[in-house]
Amino acid sequence: MSISLTILGCHSATPRTFAHPTSQYLEINNRRFLIDCGEGTQVQLRKYKIKFSAINHIFISHLHGDHFFGLIGLLSTFGLLGRKNDLHVFGPRDLKNIINLQLKASNSWLSFNLIFHELYSDKSELIFDDDKVEVYTIPLEHRVYTNGFLFKEKTGERKLNIEAIKQISEIEICDYQNLKSGKDFTKKDGRVILNKSLTFNPPKSLSYAFCSDTIYKPDITSIIKGVDLLYHEATFLNDRQETAITTKHSTAEEAAKIAKQANVGQLILGHYSSRYNNLDLFKQEAETVFDKVILAKEGKIIKIDNKVPNELFIAHLN
Amino acid sequence: MSISLTILGCHSATPRTFAHPTSQYLEINNRRFLIDCGEGTQVQLRKYKIKFSAINHIFISHLHGDHFFGLIGLLSTFGLLGRKNDLHVFGPRDLKNIINLQLKASNSWLSFNLIFHELYSDKSELIFDDDKVEVYTIPLEHRVYTNGFLFKEKTGERKLNIEAIKQISEIEICDYQNLKSGKDFTKKDGRVILNKSLTFNPPKSLSYAFCSDTIYKPDITSIIKGVDLLYHEATFLNDRQETAITTKHSTAEEAAKIAKQANVGQLILGHYSSRYNNLDLFKQEAETVFDKVILAKEGKIIKIDNKVPNELFIAHLN
Repeated sequence: MSISLTILGCHSATPRTFAHPTSQYLEINNRRFLIDCGEGTQVQLRKYKIKFSAINHIFISHLHGDHFFGLIGLLSTFGLLGRKNDLHVFGPRDLKNIINLQLKASNSWLSFNLIFHELYSDKSELIFDDDKVEVYTIPLEHRVYTNGFLFKEKTGERKLNIEAIKQISEIEICDYQNLKSGKDFTKKDGRVILNKSLTFNPPKSLSYAFCSDTIYKPDITSIIKGVDLLYHEATFLNDRQETAITTKHSTAEEAAKIAKQANVGQLILGHYSSRYNNLDLFKQEAETVFDKVILAKEGKIIKIDNKVPNELFIAHLN
Repeated sequence: MSISLTILGCHSATPRTFAHPTSQYLEINNRRFLIDCGEGTQVQLRKYKIKFSAINHIFISHLHGDHFFGLIGLLSTFGLLGRKNDLHVFGPRDLKNIINLQLKASNSWLSFNLIFHELYSDKSELIFDDDKVEVYTIPLEHRVYTNGFLFKEKTGERKLNIEAIKQISEIEICDYQNLKSGKDFTKKDGRVILNKSLTFNPPKSLSYAFCSDTIYKPDITSIIKGVDLLYHEATFLNDRQETAITTKHSTAEEAAKIAKQANVGQLILGHYSSRYNNLDLFKQEAETVFDKVILAKEGKIIKIDNKVPNELFIAHLN
């Protein structure tokens, strides 16, 4: 069980040659997700050698261009390449119309099923659920309807305590699956051996929360409490606190406050305004509040593993 | 009077790191136009240092993604930057709905007037006309409604033949403008001096025709006859003639046939399919039919001047 997050773009507003808008590729517990899809995301996916076929679920936070203008191009490319797998897109209501209108105008018939999951609730809800991972919305507050997304590994099976099991000669290999799934063992004489004396707790489940774009919104901490990794937008520094309020964005300090209140493992900052050239200032400002801060950067891969969830592996692709 | 054409992207279908879809920036007789706007065009404009403020007229040939998916991003960026000048967009009918739906969903109010000129005729028509330049549509045949565009410099004023004028002492400086505009000169004794004996022909007017995407369509030659520069799509080589017909594209040889039949000055090829790695093959194939062939390449600037219209200046931006 592990998380690997690749930053495809982490700047706000307008794309520039070396500053792409928001998009992230997440691998969690062997599931793969694309989060947001600013203009040029398909080129970034190619650049960082992420297979198009790995992407079957795309989550769009909101309908500002820097978070979704690349989606129609990516879908078209999937179509041109003859994709067959279903593709699920989770996003605000209007997204379906926007995509369908463009497909219709270009007389394009996709080679795959495109399944929209329209989001409109202002409450956190479970929107994806399989045997490995759950995804919940995180209602955010921005200038348009916006959700963050919480990705949670499902708790795995309990681990067998082989030494303890060996003490009970009646236990056969065919009983192991019951033990892994948490059942107690009943001996022939009717005595019950509690599961917890025969197994260890399962490995810690990891979780990742993506929160962008949003004004400082402390009530999200109840949803993201204790996540291992939190990406929180930090469009501005404190010097532009008023602009942050007017435009419904956050400062680096506010992102750090959320991280602290939610007691997260690590905070990743991004969505930097182009007004700032020195991104280290974002880290410095956040670290006055919370000490585990990572700056998002294009091509950066942030990995954590359930064995040592507080240790990070960070790589950088060129 | 001159033409300067900058290739921003010249590949077909899906954008890749070093292969952007169609977009061109044209300067003709001091007017500036953007032609087509595939995904990433705004980044290409920045890369090649073309001022956003220079663009007041955008021409979209058709609604396949590789020709217009970058438009909404460019318009949004214009808005974010607080643009004030009117922007005119010429393109197929549905384009207006597509753009407006996205602006509405993102709750974006542009800071400038966005004026759509919806095209739907299947006949060539004059769609732009000022004191310097005329632009006509070139009806093409593709899988969706498509136009090419013909950009023509207007004929300038006649040049004064000062030596001849000096022979007629009655001609005053205040008469010069009448002579430049082609009027004859009437002497006090009633005798008429013909204009052509007092002036030279105006400089040759230059013209550029953009033809993409289209199946081989020889009837366009009557519209583009004698243009100085012709860009004609060449998605395929002869080895894929059947695919060209099925997908309603052209081969390099067919583009060259159009150039030859229309007796153009220079032919520029582009819109290459990603199936081909060696683009020189396009030039070689076209040169079997027509000898003045240029390969479009990102960052290439093709300039002609009315003094020596058959000579080209080609530069390459990095």
